[in-house]
Amino acid sequence: MSSDRLSRQIAFIIEIDKLKSILRQTLITDGSRRENSAEHSWHLAVMAPLLAEYAPEPVNVERAIRMLLVHDIVEIDAGDTFAYDTHGNESKAERELQAAGRIFGLLPEDQQREYRALWEEFEIRDTADARFANALDRLQPLLNNYRTQGGTWRIHKLNRTQVVKRMEPVREFLPSVYPIVEEYLSDACARGWLEE
Amino acid sequence: MSSDRLSRQIAFIIEIDKLKSILRQTLITDGSRRENSAEHSWHLAVMAPLLAEYAPEPVNVERAIRMLLVHDIVEIDAGDTFAYDTHGNESKAERELQAAGRIFGLLPEDQQREYRALWEEFEIRDTADARFANALDRLQPLLNNYRTQGGTWRIHKLNRTQVVKRMEPVREFLPSVYPIVEEYLSDACARGWLEE
Repeated sequence: MSSDRLSRQIAFIIEIDKLKSILRQTLITDGSRRENSAEHSWHLAVMAPLLAEYAPEPVNVERAIRMLLVHDIVEIDAGDTFAYDTHGNESKAERELQAAGRIFGLLPEDQQREYRALWEEFEIRDTADARFANALDRLQPLLNNYRTQGGTWRIHKLNRTQVVKRMEPVREFLPSVYPIVEEYLSDACARGWLEE
Repeated sequence: MSSDRLSRQIAFIIEIDKLKSILRQTLITDGSRRENSAEHSWHLAVMAPLLAEYAPEPVNVERAIRMLLVHDIVEIDAGDTFAYDTHGNESKAERELQAAGRIFGLLPEDQQREYRALWEEFEIRDTADARFANALDRLQPLLNNYRTQGGTWRIHKLNRTQVVKRMEPVREFLPSVYPIVEEYLSDACARGWLEE
């Protein structure tokens, strides 16, 4: 009844529903449960137009939004690798590459190329749009961890040095926002939510 | 430490995390739980560039994406009103208007105006972008209901006439996609997931 092209598009749309079941370490702000990668991607996409004005290099917000929307889709096969998990991060690139092949491969050729290129750009971070998108991806978990009395920091007994290292893209690509990061980290340490 | 402008932007970003706790009637495709409005918004935003080619009038996909990203934010205060709930839908407009005032009101004036205007445009549907966005908002639950053996249709004992009426925007603004709707509805009726 429907064309092959449309069938492929619908198959992809149905497939990516699975991202709603991929759990991240971060908690949602009421602390009731872990965040999933679909709602996390939504959050970042809404943040992009709001914070683009702080990027120190010109950013194409629309491209950043599109990148943020697809940046975690590979986790459907590869799973979410916790940022502070050294072991898991060793095999991450290979697992995600295979996932990209299968999942974006469901789409018609032209759209496959487009979505896959956006994902690769986000991963490689050699454009201003990708660097900006990546900084948002680091900032949002910090806001949620702070709102959940330390959240992941407390659960995994992280220290300030580890988190500061993780926040490096925010310092570099959203420098005017970085004071908030420092303010939250100092307060989190003072309250015992994060080790000094 | 940070400017008032940035503080307002961060306050809004933290506030909208609550959309992850607003449950819709639709189930996610594995049938394990109800979908929330944040991940639903993400799903629609990813769908937009894939299906824009089927819109019978020129669509600005980037604007449609932005609209889809913010279209449900008012539900943080107003709740999700089930599409087939006549009673709840009577008070919906008023509840959502108040919610828009409070939630978008957290943002700096210029961004407040921008996000609020996008939300209003989606609601009023007097532009091609809004009509396209709205058609996606109708199509996605159909895909999820079909994948969950009738999902909401079965739970609420809906009949084909009710769902067809709800799918009217898909027939009008994504006419080449509509055959899929009909195919799924016929199959759902044949399998007893939806009453004829």
